[in-house]
Amino acid sequence: MLMYKKIHIGVIGAGDCPVETYNMASELGYLIGKNGWILICGGLGGVMEGAAKGCYKAGGMTVGILPGEEKLAANPFITLPIPTGLGEGRNLLVVRASDVVVAIAGGYGTLSEIALALKIDKPVVGLKTWPGIEGVDYVETPQQALDRVARHLSRLE
Amino acid sequence: MLMYKKIHIGVIGAGDCPVETYNMASELGYLIGKNGWILICGGLGGVMEGAAKGCYKAGGMTVGILPGEEKLAANPFITLPIPTGLGEGRNLLVVRASDVVVAIAGGYGTLSEIALALKIDKPVVGLKTWPGIEGVDYVETPQQALDRVARHLSRLE
Amino acid sequence: MLMYKKIHIGVIGAGDCPVETYNMASELGYLIGKNGWILICGGLGGVMEGAAKGCYKAGGMTVGILPGEEKLAANPFITLPIPTGLGEGRNLLVVRASDVVVAIAGGYGTLSEIALALKIDKPVVGLKTWPGIEGVDYVETPQQALDRVARHLSRLE
Amino acid sequence: MLMYKKIHIGVIGAGDCPVETYNMASELGYLIGKNGWILICGGLGGVMEGAAKGCYKAGGMTVGILPGEEKLAANPFITLPIPTGLGEGRNLLVVRASDVVVAIAGGYGTLSEIALALKIDKPVVGLKTWPGIEGVDYVETPQQALDRVARHLSRLE
Repeated sequence: MLMYKKIHIGVIGAGDCPVETYNMASELGYLIGKNGWILICGGLGGVMEGAAKGCYKAGGMTVGILPGEEKLAANPFITLPIPTGLGEGRNLLVVRASDVVVAIAGGYGTLSEIALALKIDKPVVGLKTWPGIEGVDYVETPQQALDRVARHLSRLE
Repeated sequence: MLMYKKIHIGVIGAGDCPVETYNMASELGYLIGKNGWILICGGLGGVMEGAAKGCYKAGGMTVGILPGEEKLAANPFITLPIPTGLGEGRNLLVVRASDVVVAIAGGYGTLSEIALALKIDKPVVGLKTWPGIEGVDYVETPQQALDRVARHLSRLE
Repeated sequence: MLMYKKIHIGVIGAGDCPVETYNMASELGYLIGKNGWILICGGLGGVMEGAAKGCYKAGGMTVGILPGEEKLAANPFITLPIPTGLGEGRNLLVVRASDVVVAIAGGYGTLSEIALALKIDKPVVGLKTWPGIEGVDYVETPQQALDRVARHLSRLE
Repeated sequence: MLMYKKIHIGVIGAGDCPVETYNMASELGYLIGKNGWILICGGLGGVMEGAAKGCYKAGGMTVGILPGEEKLAANPFITLPIPTGLGEGRNLLVVRASDVVVAIAGGYGTLSEIALALKIDKPVVGLKTWPGIEGVDYVETPQQALDRVARHLSRLE
C-alpha cells in the first residue's frame, strides 16, 4: 500500500503558550504518531512544537508548513519542513493539507485557521480553544480529541 | 496630491445575505464613498455587492479582490476587479490591502478575515457580526461604523 | 457603462533599469493611459515606475500589486497600491489581473512573469526583453507594443 | 540526527511528456532516492511522476506540492501530497521548498519555475530544458545532473 493514502491530521495553536498547553499538544501529537497518522502543523514553537515533539517521539512523520522562506526556522521535531514565504497565507495551506484539524487554545492566527478549515469543509475538533463557534467539535482532553478525530475520519471514508 | 495616499476601507461579509444586511452594507458603502475613501472587498455578491453598490453610487472607487481567475465574476459595482485565482487565499489579501476593516454579519469566511485582520494588526469594526471576539470594535449602525473607522484612521496617522 | 469593463494592461520589467529602459516604459505607460486603459504592474521602481509615471501623466489609473505588506512602498505614480505580503508570489497576480502583458527588458522576475502569463494563456508582447521565447510577440518600440496590444485585445473580445 | 536536516531536491518539468523524458526523470529520481535526499515536485504526471516513481523505487520520500485542493490528485508515487489550491501559485512553493532544482525539458510552467528559482537564489541544473538561460547549469544526463546537484549542495553548506 502506498503511503500517500495515509491520514493527515492538522494541529493548530499559538507559537507561544503555557507549559500545560504545550504538554497537551505533545500528548495529542504522541497519539497521532502512534496511530500512524502524519502530523501537519505550522512548524514553529508553542503548540506546533509540542505536537511535533509528541508525534516525533511516537515515530511519526511531522510536516511543518512555515510562514517564512527558510526551512531551518522549523522546530527540531519537524521531519519535513515546507518553507512557503507566504506569511500568514500559509495558514490556509495548513488546513488544506489536513483531513481533520485539531485546534488547541490559540490566538487570532488559530482563529483564522479554525474559520478557514470550516469554510473549506474540514472537520475541526476544539481543545481549550476559542469557544462558541458553531461547527467546532469541542472536547476536554487529548484522548477525547483523538477519539473525535477518528470518528470524523470514519465519516470521510 | 497623489491619489495613492487615499484611505482604503475593507468591508467584509457573506456572499449571500438577507436584504436588511445588504442594505446596511450599501449604506456603509455610500458613506465610505462620500468620504472619498476607496472600498476594498471580495468583489462577489451579498455584503460585498451591497457595499460596492453604495460606494459606487456615491462616486467612490470600488476594488474587488476575487477568489477566481476571471475579472468578469465581479459584481457590477466593482470599478477595479483583481482576479487572483487563490480561492480562499484571497481573504488575506482583502484585509492586507485595507487600512481599517468593517465586518458585517457573515459566516466562516468573514470570521477568517476578522481573525486575519486582527492577527496583522488592522483595526476591525464589527456590525452585527460574530460576537464576543476580543479586539473587535462592535457598533450597531453603519453611521456608527463610519465614525469608528474615522477614529481608527486618526490613530493610524 | 460601468468602469469594470475597462481594459487592464500589465507592464512587467525589472525594479532597477537603465534610463533608456525607464523612458521606454514611460512612453508605453503614457500610451496606455491615453487609451483609457488601466495599468497593472508590480508597483516598485525601474520599469514599474517608468510605466506608472507615463500612465499617470496621461491621466490613467495605475495599479501596483506589491510584494510587501505596506502600501507606502509603492512608487509615487501608483494610484492604487495593493500590498500582498506574498513576496515573489505576487508575480502571478500581476499577470492574472492583466488582459495583455507587455514585458520590457527585465531579469529573472520578469522571465517568471512572461512564463506564467503564457502558461495561463495571456498574450505577451516583448520589448527588448528575454529573446527567443516561443509565444512572445516581439516588437521594437513602445508604439509598436501598443499596436500589438490593441490587436491582441481585438481578438479577446 | 533529525530528519529535517535532510536535503530537498526539486525536480520540475511538464505534466505530459514523451517516454524518453519520463525515463530520464525516473532515472534521476532513483539517484536522488539512493542518496537519501527528499524529492520535491509538483505531484502530477509526466516528469513529476517519472521522478517520483524513480525516487519511490529507491526507497526515498517524495513530496508533491499540488495545484489543486485534493491530495488524491497526486500521482501514485507521491508519499506526501500537499494540496494547496493555489493553482500555478504552487510553482513558487515547489522551488522555495527545494535546496537545488533540476529542470527536465518542460513548457511554460517549467520556465516559470526556473525563473522563480533563479530569482530567489536557488541553484538550477538543466537537463534538456529551456536553453540559453544565464545561471542555469546545463547537463546532458541524469548522472551528470546528480553530480552537479551534489556540487551545488557542497557550496551551500
